[in-house]
Amino acid sequence: MAESVERLQQRVQELERELAQERNRRVPGSGEGGGGRIRIEKMSSEVVDSNPYSRLMALKRMGIVSDYEKIRTFAVAIVGVGGVGSVTAEMLTRCGIGKLLLFDYDKVELANMNRLFFQPHQAGLSKVQAAEHTLRNINPDVLFEVHNYNITTVENFQHFMDRISNGGLEEGKPVDLVLSCVDNFEARMTINTCAPPLVVAANIDEKTLKREGVCAASLPTTMGVVAGILVQNVLKFLLNFGTVSFYLGYNAMQDFFPTMSMKPNPQCDDRNCRKQQEEYKKKVAALPKQEVMQEEEEIIHEDNDWARRFCH
Amino acid sequence: MAESVERLQQRVQELERELAQERNRRVPGSGEGGGGRIRIEKMSSEVVDSNPYSRLMALKRMGIVSDYEKIRTFAVAIVGVGGVGSVTAEMLTRCGIGKLLLFDYDKVELANMNRLFFQPHQAGLSKVQAAEHTLRNINPDVLFEVHNYNITTVENFQHFMDRISNGGLEEGKPVDLVLSCVDNFEARMTINTCAPPLVVAANIDEKTLKREGVCAASLPTTMGVVAGILVQNVLKFLLNFGTVSFYLGYNAMQDFFPTMSMKPNPQCDDRNCRKQQEEYKKKVAALPKQEVMQEEEEIIHEDNDWARRFCH
Repeated sequence: MAESVERLQQRVQELERELAQERNRRVPGSGEGGGGRIRIEKMSSEVVDSNPYSRLMALKRMGIVSDYEKIRTFAVAIVGVGGVGSVTAEMLTRCGIGKLLLFDYDKVELANMNRLFFQPHQAGLSKVQAAEHTLRNINPDVLFEVHNYNITTVENFQHFMDRISNGGLEEGKPVDLVLSCVDNFEARMTINTCAPPLVVAANIDEKTLKREGVCAASLPTTMGVVAGILVQNVLKFLLNFGTVSFYLGYNAMQDFFPTMSMKPNPQCDDRNCRKQQEEYKKKVAALPKQEVMQEEEEIIHEDNDWARRFCH
Repeated sequence: MAESVERLQQRVQELERELAQERNRRVPGSGEGGGGRIRIEKMSSEVVDSNPYSRLMALKRMGIVSDYEKIRTFAVAIVGVGGVGSVTAEMLTRCGIGKLLLFDYDKVELANMNRLFFQPHQAGLSKVQAAEHTLRNINPDVLFEVHNYNITTVENFQHFMDRISNGGLEEGKPVDLVLSCVDNFEARMTINTCAPPLVVAANIDEKTLKREGVCAASLPTTMGVVAGILVQNVLKFLLNFGTVSFYLGYNAMQDFFPTMSMKPNPQCDDRNCRKQQEEYKKKVAALPKQEVMQEEEEIIHEDNDWARRFCH
């Protein structure tokens, strides 16, 4: 067994070298390490064609974000790497997030080609593995941790909770956000029991859409819009700019975007939920209000409110 | 241990596929789909993992679209294959559009990695060439025609107009829609002089955002949202479902989506514009109103109105 692992590892190295050669042959000088780009130690604002961060760092010079580089200090977990989750992961990767943790148990199928991100040659691979490979190629500065399992089983849930609590940018620290990009109620409820802060990308439960023998329809357009709005709010939340939406819906038939605010239920059946509501209240009360200016204070309050753990 | 062997075997398979794909890329015509999937003659509704159209055709069974296969009969031109245009092209490709015509004169740079679609190993390639390659791999059923030039020069404009007029699915017929995904006023004005119907994805002019020595900031999120909303409206327009928006804005700071309707200016300075307004009126008047049911009639009217050539 040990021998076959070693042989496979050698084969992987060999193939990676060949692939890098092929890609370099096609695009001379385009970079190293699988045809992507080399790692960048420090984000720069320099306006040159070779700087992948110039148009993001421009948010500083335009006065929108005060400290864009801070994006590198955050770890975000994405649960569900399907239509919404995969595009969410790509957007955060391109924005230069510090670390991404991906959770999904599914495989890529040709039937998924109606959404963005995955490509036909990846059919048969696990979604997290295929995603990691593509994302690492797009931005090798991001750290990736992927888990190919179903978070709703007892055993996996323990591991999932452990990674949410300890899988931050610095091992042992919690992740900064958990994004729920799943398509079923069970997984959403499971995610709800994990630690706050938590953001929910509320895709409707696929089961409510399914009829006998019919798969739910989906379009790349709605997936792109939902992921875009989700990640835009993640960026506003993490980097403190604009107004974070508590709830934002998208009705694709009418181009209608309903908004509302959601508060946790103080009489929730779930003891753990009530406990976390109490903890959250204490945390908000302990915020150093006097240190921030009036305007910023409001934004911080809104952000935390928005990210508070939703109760079912 | 067994798990890591399986992972390594999958990785070897993935690399072998990618390598084959790279090699096919170098030798034109050496492989169908370039390592992707084989072509599909007829769109099927069959719910199996291997059917890339099952979740799109499900729009029929769900009663949203009456004839999804009709998507294959349309040719759409995309002018500008940047942040919005590239994602627009990918969405239409995945939806199975009949033909795409892409126009752009720019090259892929690492500085474009802040948006979706292009990847670092494509740096240095022309945008249309890189896009065609990726898109053909995603869906070999779509016909592609790409032009690597600036449409605003006199010579190129003639060629551009010729392709808009004759580059439809059937050579000699006009394209069905022209999508303006450019970032400057000159190109937008040039597109405006071409034949209707025309849809405009109104990105703000980059120049209004630029200050001395500062490049305009942009995020993958806003690009994904704008492209998603654009293509959703293209689908509604071409396949006759939902309500097509005349104008829909996106304020990413506040998650505000302003809508309004835009009418052409009957006193427009441009003689050609006034002429086309007249032609459009005649075309609308000649529509066979009695053949459609009440509800459908309204939709057709709205669609045509929305797609009418905008006047500056």
